[in-house]
Amino acid sequence: MVKVGVVGISGYSGLTALEILLNHPQVRVTYVGADSTTGTLSDIWPRLNGRTNLVCAKYDAAAAIESCDVIFLAVPHGISKKITPQLIKSGRKVIDLSGDYRLRDSRVYQKWYGEPHTDAVNLKKAVYGLPEIYRVDIAKAQLIANPGCYPTAAVLGLSPMLCAYGSAVESITIDAKSGVSGAGRKAKLELSYCEVNENFKAYKVLEHQHSPEIELYLSKVAQSRVRVDFVPHLLPINRGILETIYVRLKDKISVKALHTVYKRFYKIEPFVRIMALDAQPELKNVVMTNYCDIGLALSADRKLAVITSVIDNLGKGAAGQAVQNLNILCGFREQEGLL
Amino acid sequence: MVKVGVVGISGYSGLTALEILLNHPQVRVTYVGADSTTGTLSDIWPRLNGRTNLVCAKYDAAAAIESCDVIFLAVPHGISKKITPQLIKSGRKVIDLSGDYRLRDSRVYQKWYGEPHTDAVNLKKAVYGLPEIYRVDIAKAQLIANPGCYPTAAVLGLSPMLCAYGSAVESITIDAKSGVSGAGRKAKLELSYCEVNENFKAYKVLEHQHSPEIELYLSKVAQSRVRVDFVPHLLPINRGILETIYVRLKDKISVKALHTVYKRFYKIEPFVRIMALDAQPELKNVVMTNYCDIGLALSADRKLAVITSVIDNLGKGAAGQAVQNLNILCGFREQEGLL
Amino acid sequence: MVKVGVVGISGYSGLTALEILLNHPQVRVTYVGADSTTGTLSDIWPRLNGRTNLVCAKYDAAAAIESCDVIFLAVPHGISKKITPQLIKSGRKVIDLSGDYRLRDSRVYQKWYGEPHTDAVNLKKAVYGLPEIYRVDIAKAQLIANPGCYPTAAVLGLSPMLCAYGSAVESITIDAKSGVSGAGRKAKLELSYCEVNENFKAYKVLEHQHSPEIELYLSKVAQSRVRVDFVPHLLPINRGILETIYVRLKDKISVKALHTVYKRFYKIEPFVRIMALDAQPELKNVVMTNYCDIGLALSADRKLAVITSVIDNLGKGAAGQAVQNLNILCGFREQEGLL
Amino acid sequence: MVKVGVVGISGYSGLTALEILLNHPQVRVTYVGADSTTGTLSDIWPRLNGRTNLVCAKYDAAAAIESCDVIFLAVPHGISKKITPQLIKSGRKVIDLSGDYRLRDSRVYQKWYGEPHTDAVNLKKAVYGLPEIYRVDIAKAQLIANPGCYPTAAVLGLSPMLCAYGSAVESITIDAKSGVSGAGRKAKLELSYCEVNENFKAYKVLEHQHSPEIELYLSKVAQSRVRVDFVPHLLPINRGILETIYVRLKDKISVKALHTVYKRFYKIEPFVRIMALDAQPELKNVVMTNYCDIGLALSADRKLAVITSVIDNLGKGAAGQAVQNLNILCGFREQEGLL
Repeated sequence: MVKVGVVGISGYSGLTALEILLNHPQVRVTYVGADSTTGTLSDIWPRLNGRTNLVCAKYDAAAAIESCDVIFLAVPHGISKKITPQLIKSGRKVIDLSGDYRLRDSRVYQKWYGEPHTDAVNLKKAVYGLPEIYRVDIAKAQLIANPGCYPTAAVLGLSPMLCAYGSAVESITIDAKSGVSGAGRKAKLELSYCEVNENFKAYKVLEHQHSPEIELYLSKVAQSRVRVDFVPHLLPINRGILETIYVRLKDKISVKALHTVYKRFYKIEPFVRIMALDAQPELKNVVMTNYCDIGLALSADRKLAVITSVIDNLGKGAAGQAVQNLNILCGFREQEGLL
Repeated sequence: MVKVGVVGISGYSGLTALEILLNHPQVRVTYVGADSTTGTLSDIWPRLNGRTNLVCAKYDAAAAIESCDVIFLAVPHGISKKITPQLIKSGRKVIDLSGDYRLRDSRVYQKWYGEPHTDAVNLKKAVYGLPEIYRVDIAKAQLIANPGCYPTAAVLGLSPMLCAYGSAVESITIDAKSGVSGAGRKAKLELSYCEVNENFKAYKVLEHQHSPEIELYLSKVAQSRVRVDFVPHLLPINRGILETIYVRLKDKISVKALHTVYKRFYKIEPFVRIMALDAQPELKNVVMTNYCDIGLALSADRKLAVITSVIDNLGKGAAGQAVQNLNILCGFREQEGLL
Repeated sequence: MVKVGVVGISGYSGLTALEILLNHPQVRVTYVGADSTTGTLSDIWPRLNGRTNLVCAKYDAAAAIESCDVIFLAVPHGISKKITPQLIKSGRKVIDLSGDYRLRDSRVYQKWYGEPHTDAVNLKKAVYGLPEIYRVDIAKAQLIANPGCYPTAAVLGLSPMLCAYGSAVESITIDAKSGVSGAGRKAKLELSYCEVNENFKAYKVLEHQHSPEIELYLSKVAQSRVRVDFVPHLLPINRGILETIYVRLKDKISVKALHTVYKRFYKIEPFVRIMALDAQPELKNVVMTNYCDIGLALSADRKLAVITSVIDNLGKGAAGQAVQNLNILCGFREQEGLL
Repeated sequence: MVKVGVVGISGYSGLTALEILLNHPQVRVTYVGADSTTGTLSDIWPRLNGRTNLVCAKYDAAAAIESCDVIFLAVPHGISKKITPQLIKSGRKVIDLSGDYRLRDSRVYQKWYGEPHTDAVNLKKAVYGLPEIYRVDIAKAQLIANPGCYPTAAVLGLSPMLCAYGSAVESITIDAKSGVSGAGRKAKLELSYCEVNENFKAYKVLEHQHSPEIELYLSKVAQSRVRVDFVPHLLPINRGILETIYVRLKDKISVKALHTVYKRFYKIEPFVRIMALDAQPELKNVVMTNYCDIGLALSADRKLAVITSVIDNLGKGAAGQAVQNLNILCGFREQEGLL
């Protein structure tokens, strides 16, 4: 049994992580801490009543270090980079669900997150927790930067394309649609029910902070500079992301060859499913799971590929993937505790 | 053309009132004021862009008095009772959509709204703006207390029963379900999308501030003290209230007679529709209208009547009814400007 | 490992049962059959792709008997009573999720289900699968009639009241609200998205076929004839039932005593949670779980109790409870495989 | 007063048209006919109870011709081309909301609608009812092919771009999201509530029958062959379409110049609103209206324009636009009867 702590418990990622961990056969949750939300977990989340007697304490690094082997940080970006150094110094392993350790360059971080990065040392060491690309590094990592929800769907949706046809790619457009839990759990008017329900809109058009993260890791996969145009939208549902990815190509490709490329790329992956060529993925098939489903289509002129990639933003896009990373880190079966 | 002003514009009732008034053939909106939300209406509500050039000013009593014949107050309770005295003194007519002038007794007001009433004089004079009961008084009123949303559905649903069978009534239970706009437009975590969507709950069980309003006006209708037990629930939709009203009777009644009583009671009413005996009202038939639809059923032992009453909480439950009152006040056709 | 079969796979209960069973550490799903929906489960339910290689065959009793210890029937009522006799004769255990074996009297069945019951012998033998009341009998049963969704919430919500205060009860009114999956998975106009979304209505007012089931088992609990008035409503959400239960009493009771009665009644129950006196249950806390949460309130005159009971209609109201029954039947820990 | 008939009344477009027409100050609805749905309108649509005494008769061409000046066809494609010839022959004016008369070439029609066009004569004569482009022709037309919902948003969103920068356009990708009413009112499992709610998916990827309509009318606007790649998605809301349109350009453009182009193009239009450069359109601002709101953004390299175009699919995308066309046809003020 590995001893796991969760820091940050008032948000949806923290709750989802905790629900998965409490049910994980090889995990014991030994610590729960938060900045302001303290008390019994069953008071904080009535949903957990009867499933745990854990108490959430005001976060204390010494207590977390004392009681845990691995610590999940489900705190907002900006907080994580303050907490992490001490945990790393103590030898504990950290899985950070925030955006703090995903961008390797502190100048890029400052540009997109609007504040200086104060932990450049660990920023360098962090491993990007996308198992389908970095499984080997994750197994040996001390600090895992758990990917953002949009980047997870994008990088999984585009990696086979870039590996097989990278030099032929002319442009990449990502039209992303996310459920509301992706915006976090906040008392904001624009997230209130009547403002979101029966509504739909684009936001942060071409300006979302996940753009550089997508470009960084796609560039690594492609081994050359990759540019994407990324437009997110707010979907009136609780959970789930669908990205419709348009890849324009200089040369004609074959849809069967494309399909084979994707099937092979993810052949041994437990959590990526490639749809048949006549089928499209749907959010309902991945919500409450750790799966990423990918659909493929090609234009009649065979020079535009339409890739549809769906995940649960709280599952494969956050807490599920964090547990997948934990499993890799601890040498467990990768699906352990996960649907 | 009557000159109408609207005070309070950041909430859903204010917007709905404004949308109806802008389209009303005998109304000119001559003033819009608010406490903090100021600027062009098309900036405040992009929905209104192109439909009006009105500018919302910081509320100023003199300006409102100067430019209006009738003033709608779509402000929170507590504000209304501060604004109203000066408007009344100036001779203007006021239609107050808040709860401030509905309870005739300032002690009852203090008990349920948690603060003293500071305008006992006008509290006495106010006419309750439920046209189906108080049409004659409304026509002559200077200050109209526009009914609450729950009380509108309840009093319309119960009045015929109490008039015809009042002495036989043993108990009244109102199980009410309201869309989220009934809670107002607020940045509150419990009203945020993910907390409300795919959820349902009762709240303020037997303790809602609309209970005394319902009892007060039902007692007037019945000409004797009427008690109700009232339990509201939060429905994951934007607009609409359905109340399922259970009336237990000492004596058996006939469902056909009951149906006839209701048909007759509302025979000339333009906005109350009695369903056929085998049909139930649905929210979708009244949303975006000023209608109240009422369904009737009787238990096999003929001693329990189940009355279902539906309205649009922003229509007949607020802004629609306010315009109906305006029409009466001004001698217009009662349906003018209303669906 | 117990070998379990599932018959009926195109509906939401069948899918939910299958999802739970596939993840159950002591179960092997050895048979899946259906009337018309056949093929690989991952084709029928893309959600299950990668989680099972099972194939759904055209239902064949011999095959089911050959390969299973226990058979779940997730078929519509009417079908179950045709399939069950042969399975029972073969010595297999059956957990029937339909309404066919819940009403003990075939005349009552005919009255409410509109067709004669053709298996009176097993109808007598069937044990009602509500563990909180019939745990001992379930452990020894061969045929378990899994309770209806509405009756589960009602009987759990009312049993402590009837045991402790039964003779004081004057009337019981159940105002029930159910998510749409409760109506089954059907191509019906009235269940189509635009007809249900942003809508709300009562249906089968005082005439729902779950009424006699509720009365039958409450009468057994109370050891005297219990009458309820039951009005269901269609809630625009996927999953979940909330019942607001109004119990009028001849005598005053104490809310603290009432709370104690409920806490004690369910003291050792793994799946019933009694809310604190100032809290109300919410659907979101039980959806995707096997819990029933119960809230309590009392009127100021102390003669009306308001009991709010929530479950997931596909969890504790169907498939979850069926697995709980399986666990009891097989001597497993009752929570095994369940949240 | 112009006498208007509506044929086809069981669908959402027919209902919406009727609701607008009943409230239109210069229209009298003199005929309502349908294939199978007959009876009083208040029985067919309880929402209309009290607003009309009209009776829907089994469709009879002679009766329609006898009683109407203008006839709205709100029937499925395939039916319209059978009904229209006789109406046209009689001299009546026809506004067809189906897809039957939008594609000018009967071979293209056959390819995309899967059946031969049987009324080539009128197909040639029909005027495409997009007032912002064809206002002058509409005023003189006898047969108006009311545009499809997706094409309305696309052609309005792209026309200024193509007029001003047509030769610089390299590729156009339209990522469209539509509310469920766009799929019509049908008893289909895939449109049932639980299948659509909390779900999202692409469908008919690059194969939707609105693609050739979009390309046809954009080509006319651009006066050269325009190709688009069109991917629609099903949005879990009742009403509204948002299209995110990606235009890749050979040359850099200026966002301010682009904005000016759009503002000028629609300067006198009553129903097209161009958002400020820092704002994005939202469905909620156009639902229940006849507006089209358009937002503009440009990539950092100034070679990708992102145009967001929103309409109510039943308003500007169907019935609202049909009434706008009626107003033009009859010489009324274009906004008459419309929000």
